[in-house]
Amino acid sequence: MVRTLRESSITTYTLQCLSDFEDAYQRRINELTARRNQARKIVGTFCLFVPDEIIYAAGADRVILCGGRNATVSLAEEYLPRNICPLVKSSFGSVVSTECSGGDACPHFNLIDMVVAEATCDAKKKMYELLNEYIPTYVIDLPQKPDSPAGIAYYTVQLEQFTDAMEGLTGTLITDDRLRREIKSANETRSLLHRLYELRRRDPPPIRGLDVLTVLQKQFFLSPEELRRILRQLCDEAERKPNEGARKPRIMISGCPMAGGNIKVPKIIEDRGGVIVVEESCTGTRAFWNLVDEHKDPLRAIAERYMQIPCSCMTPNEWRTEHIRELVERFNVDGVVYYTLQSCHAYNIERFRVQQALKETHTPLLAIETDYSDSDVEQIATRVDAFMEMIASSP
Amino acid sequence: MVRTLRESSITTYTLQCLSDFEDAYQRRINELTARRNQARKIVGTFCLFVPDEIIYAAGADRVILCGGRNATVSLAEEYLPRNICPLVKSSFGSVVSTECSGGDACPHFNLIDMVVAEATCDAKKKMYELLNEYIPTYVIDLPQKPDSPAGIAYYTVQLEQFTDAMEGLTGTLITDDRLRREIKSANETRSLLHRLYELRRRDPPPIRGLDVLTVLQKQFFLSPEELRRILRQLCDEAERKPNEGARKPRIMISGCPMAGGNIKVPKIIEDRGGVIVVEESCTGTRAFWNLVDEHKDPLRAIAERYMQIPCSCMTPNEWRTEHIRELVERFNVDGVVYYTLQSCHAYNIERFRVQQALKETHTPLLAIETDYSDSDVEQIATRVDAFMEMIASSP
Repeated sequence: MVRTLRESSITTYTLQCLSDFEDAYQRRINELTARRNQARKIVGTFCLFVPDEIIYAAGADRVILCGGRNATVSLAEEYLPRNICPLVKSSFGSVVSTECSGGDACPHFNLIDMVVAEATCDAKKKMYELLNEYIPTYVIDLPQKPDSPAGIAYYTVQLEQFTDAMEGLTGTLITDDRLRREIKSANETRSLLHRLYELRRRDPPPIRGLDVLTVLQKQFFLSPEELRRILRQLCDEAERKPNEGARKPRIMISGCPMAGGNIKVPKIIEDRGGVIVVEESCTGTRAFWNLVDEHKDPLRAIAERYMQIPCSCMTPNEWRTEHIRELVERFNVDGVVYYTLQSCHAYNIERFRVQQALKETHTPLLAIETDYSDSDVEQIATRVDAFMEMIASSP
Repeated sequence: MVRTLRESSITTYTLQCLSDFEDAYQRRINELTARRNQARKIVGTFCLFVPDEIIYAAGADRVILCGGRNATVSLAEEYLPRNICPLVKSSFGSVVSTECSGGDACPHFNLIDMVVAEATCDAKKKMYELLNEYIPTYVIDLPQKPDSPAGIAYYTVQLEQFTDAMEGLTGTLITDDRLRREIKSANETRSLLHRLYELRRRDPPPIRGLDVLTVLQKQFFLSPEELRRILRQLCDEAERKPNEGARKPRIMISGCPMAGGNIKVPKIIEDRGGVIVVEESCTGTRAFWNLVDEHKDPLRAIAERYMQIPCSCMTPNEWRTEHIRELVERFNVDGVVYYTLQSCHAYNIERFRVQQALKETHTPLLAIETDYSDSDVEQIATRVDAFMEMIASSP
């Protein structure tokens, strides 16, 4: 990824920021190892629906475990069907490979005490059951009808039970004060991400999508303090940048998350002359758009905020189509690349609704369903080229 | 199907029963048409998690809408991704085809006032959103962690809301007395199915699996009275049948439902010399195994019973693996055909756990993932042949 950044024609400020970011992974691994040696508990997560606030309030640390690398997919296929999403296979493959080969595939799997999972999509839900044979895996149930009082009440009960489980793990009582402090901290991070995204509304934006993605992919891996430090640095430098350069087609990516290691499609888009200005994704707006209300009962406020995440596991998911239309307008988007991981039924089927919504605003959509392999790079590049030409030639 | 039955070497009693059953579909369509003309409301369902008891207690009628025919799959693929489960595509294709071509594909879609759906698997859940553009579609949310008091409480709230929706549709108040009457009626049907399955424990069983499946596929299409009449007739005749004939490999089918029209794999199994003695399936034991407690608060008792359905959408789904092992023993099963519809992630991934459980009992398992097309019939037949030989040659 670093090589890619240096090859491209980005400005000095970005390089400064990201060269400082290059060893962030190893620094964090060292930090986690040190903390573990001091008996600090470390929790692994896979999904936005697991509230960080509760983990930190219990005095535990947290890392995201979603896999974005192709290397561990084939290992997973000895346990899981081939025709499921690569994120699920890559993640599970990392665990198995850590188990089998002494940990060289994914060092942070060996650092965690517990996985905190959630009942979102079919493939993840069932993969977690197998994962539990390797690492204790706690599952938070999730109502699937958003915006329903009964659903929020049920999710609140789930979070209460999760709070008990975390207290059991760390021995630290999760008081309302501790929760409020963590809510404030998480909201601060979310606000910084809003600040960063606001800068991307400029035309041309002062920062490439690929550079933002590098940070977004590590947002739940780094400590909140380190993430905020990097975000502040990035925003400060981007704000100082003069508004210059040629206009490029402004692309929104919408759909499945892009876990660390997976930059295939964004790289193609920006290599072929586009610039990604917003990601409607778990590695994007879904992660930070709404803040937790700091004036309500903390657990209830957390439940309300997290239930607003417009994941395609929710039904109906009107919030998502509305949000996409708002983002198209706010970020002055020329075209949407609807990105799905192979066999992700929920995002794949929901494409129809998104396509309908975007037709009304005359926003072109390019649908790409892919995995983590390189076999379709040329084919995707050809389609992206045609999409860019179409955007450039439209009035 | 009728042709198949006549071709095979089944005894006269089966023919009697099933020849009477031949025009059951048309009789029911006529009945529904007549009822609709008398302003009776008719509800369509797709899944076992929608309690019949509540629909009937509201004075409505009910038909199952799951599609098992390949003919409507390609129509659906104009709206839905190709790489999702054929049941979802076939069902949706029937609606679209009814809309487009004046109703010749699936006459009962034109008879219904409302679809009552449920949040089970990703593909169905998202398909229902599209369906709602054709037929008003009410979705019951479903907790995904079974055996949890909070989950049962949430599902009970969902059923209360569903009760309100049904009262709104029909104008009939759903009293506890009406619910209790319908619970008793549904339990009576379930008990008759237990009586039928008990007969299949015989060696050889007095009835073929294909014949049982014909009835099971219509169990949520027929009126409860008609279904019970047929089941009684079937049981009476089967009980009178002398215990004769050669022993055949006793096969359990376990996995995805087989909607009406889909008999591909059972037909191959029984054509190749096996006999299906039990189906761990929605078109099988999952539909009737547990009864509703008639002595508890009716809605709560319904919630408790339905939450025990060991669908693979539940996590963890220990009840299913336990149930499969019980069934293997109870029905003296020689081999399990693990049947999945293409891209059904939940049942496909859960195969690993089932395989593990069956290894402990030394029960062989043949995994078949297929769709509704005929393209793989020969390939499946070859694999089934090898499986039968393996069973025949094992000690």
